[in-house]
Amino acid sequence: MSERPERQADRRPPQGADSDAMRFNAVSAVAHFGPEAPLALDSGVLLTPFQIAYETYGTLNADKSNVVLICHALTGDQYAASPHPVTGKAGWWLTMVGPGLPIDTDRYFVICQNVLGSCMGTTGPKDIDPATGKAYGLSFPVITIADMVRAQAMLLDRLGIDDLFCVIGGSMGGMQTLQWAAAYPHRVFAAIPIATAARHSAQNIAFHEVGRQAIMADPDWQSGTYLNDAKNPAKGLAVARMAAHITYLSEAALHRKFGRNLQNREKITYGFDADFQIESYLRHQGMSFVDRFDANSYLYITRAMDYFDLAADYGGVLANAFKGTTTRFCVASFTSDWLFPTSGNRQIVHALNAAAANVSFVEIDTDKGHDAFLLDEPEMFSTLGGFIGSAAKRRGLPA
Amino acid sequence: MSERPERQADRRPPQGADSDAMRFNAVSAVAHFGPEAPLALDSGVLLTPFQIAYETYGTLNADKSNVVLICHALTGDQYAASPHPVTGKAGWWLTMVGPGLPIDTDRYFVICQNVLGSCMGTTGPKDIDPATGKAYGLSFPVITIADMVRAQAMLLDRLGIDDLFCVIGGSMGGMQTLQWAAAYPHRVFAAIPIATAARHSAQNIAFHEVGRQAIMADPDWQSGTYLNDAKNPAKGLAVARMAAHITYLSEAALHRKFGRNLQNREKITYGFDADFQIESYLRHQGMSFVDRFDANSYLYITRAMDYFDLAADYGGVLANAFKGTTTRFCVASFTSDWLFPTSGNRQIVHALNAAAANVSFVEIDTDKGHDAFLLDEPEMFSTLGGFIGSAAKRRGLPA
Repeated sequence: MSERPERQADRRPPQGADSDAMRFNAVSAVAHFGPEAPLALDSGVLLTPFQIAYETYGTLNADKSNVVLICHALTGDQYAASPHPVTGKAGWWLTMVGPGLPIDTDRYFVICQNVLGSCMGTTGPKDIDPATGKAYGLSFPVITIADMVRAQAMLLDRLGIDDLFCVIGGSMGGMQTLQWAAAYPHRVFAAIPIATAARHSAQNIAFHEVGRQAIMADPDWQSGTYLNDAKNPAKGLAVARMAAHITYLSEAALHRKFGRNLQNREKITYGFDADFQIESYLRHQGMSFVDRFDANSYLYITRAMDYFDLAADYGGVLANAFKGTTTRFCVASFTSDWLFPTSGNRQIVHALNAAAANVSFVEIDTDKGHDAFLLDEPEMFSTLGGFIGSAAKRRGLPA
Repeated sequence: MSERPERQADRRPPQGADSDAMRFNAVSAVAHFGPEAPLALDSGVLLTPFQIAYETYGTLNADKSNVVLICHALTGDQYAASPHPVTGKAGWWLTMVGPGLPIDTDRYFVICQNVLGSCMGTTGPKDIDPATGKAYGLSFPVITIADMVRAQAMLLDRLGIDDLFCVIGGSMGGMQTLQWAAAYPHRVFAAIPIATAARHSAQNIAFHEVGRQAIMADPDWQSGTYLNDAKNPAKGLAVARMAAHITYLSEAALHRKFGRNLQNREKITYGFDADFQIESYLRHQGMSFVDRFDANSYLYITRAMDYFDLAADYGGVLANAFKGTTTRFCVASFTSDWLFPTSGNRQIVHALNAAAANVSFVEIDTDKGHDAFLLDEPEMFSTLGGFIGSAAKRRGLPA
């Protein structure tokens, strides 16, 4: 087991994407942490061995002061600006990451790590438990957002990176961003939590529980041991994804995109086929998801989000999480986001104000719902680009 | 097969409920419609034979001018003010129906019919297809809201009731109310659609599709033939119910009722048990539902709602559905209802205004979400009670 991350620059991106990868100086890597470096989880378990798969873009400067850490969302991954190795699809944040973009790969050294518990190379329930020689399944320890961030910090230690110029992420990525700022205040110069909350709401726990029950209701889930029998609870996972996907959009966006339009037909069929475009779209979302995501990872990561309640670790007062912070914050929300509504983002701002932190807040007017942070939102680009640029100047980074 | 409805006054309500049943003069009945009276469905199918199970409360007056028809919602039934024969629970609208209540059983003769396609006595997919001798399953014809209303009208014909003093219903009951007013304008004196829409939105179709996919993903569903093998896709149906149930509430109500409270424990367990009260509550909602509802009925009735688009039958102009109407309308919505938001109810009001109809509109301020129409909402009681009382006076009914 290597003490140093393996550079896997020989990964072959799909045709046409090579030029992007070169432009961004994209590198894929995996860092292994052996028995000498266990991960101490909130549950009390010491996880060992484990590994973290990550992508980097751009070039680390001499004093390592230009690092941007991107934290991904529930079903995201490290491929923020690289093609996905399974689907071949372009990076999920190419709107934000690249030369001349808000997260400018010509200026910053960008790191995006696959989170603990996920399934794209970082250790999670689909990996082999060395104690049994079989896939962990539900014997993988339950993890938290703080555990994810702790693992990320270990990778930075490994890379000799003391502090981060900027931590940024949307949704669960925003939770990690808040956790970073709270747990490692001296390591975070600027933090940008987007479309997130300092704790998961009852409604959001409810939606997650529906997804988990859909997975667990699938007989191919087999109490989580499906991988050992070469099975996959694809139907349950697809239902979970479909339910979740509705929450990522807005009623207005669904009405605009689909309305009651029929799918390749002129009349309703009086049947249960996908008469409506929205049905066909949702089915596609469900089916394509199962090809790239592990069902148990979905259980673990949704649970980590449910458990997230930052104030609870600070005497129930969110402001205490940011006491004395010198990090500068930019909090962003979207008007039509009903999963992580502006009210929850504003609670973060209020807590930061109460801690006398340096904080900007922007509510971006859009009908695209929660997923707006992944989409073409010029106001988001200009606001966050401006904030990051100003912070870079303050940090003394060359323009 | 009887041409006249059988009176089944010998049904035994659970202990303690007898007095209510007597107070309301509750009667359970089933009307059979044989080959001489097929039901012409929108799909072109002639359904025969079929039957309608219904409850009545109060006493029909001499000129049959005091009939109130209550239309129930997706998973509702005819037991508006009678105990449910399976669960033993009290009637679902005891807040509205009874002596001295807005739907006053001392003044009005109240009829509540189990809708076509449902599973509480009216013909639906769980019943025996006379052509095969087996349960219909998916060979039951797909039905529409208009079909449900057409069947209801046939029952009224059977009972010799020409017109209705009032038609009232929430959610899918509101859709039926609108359909009644549009299809039989001369038979409806007053109409009260509550928390509804003149067409099902893309988001609502999406949520229904998730529920259907959850049912169909359950291997015990067996392409709809489960009853013939004494199986029940209970897990899939429970997931469908859980997802739907979230949409019946509001984020504020969930926060108020549950927040992040833990269920019978002081700490999170780092596991997938129901740590949070909201999880436990949702699981209970799912599990108790499957005891009283048929999975195929859920498919058929959600489909009928998806297909509902009243304007489409009137040249795409909703106002045309109400052209020349003499019915007086009262439309009610709830501020926190995001499933059938005020905007959709207001579209009905605008169409009625465009048709120069007599219409009142009230948006009731509550945090209880869509289900508010089933709950203790004093403003709803006073508004609808006032409207019904005034309409009764106008109708010449004795106070």
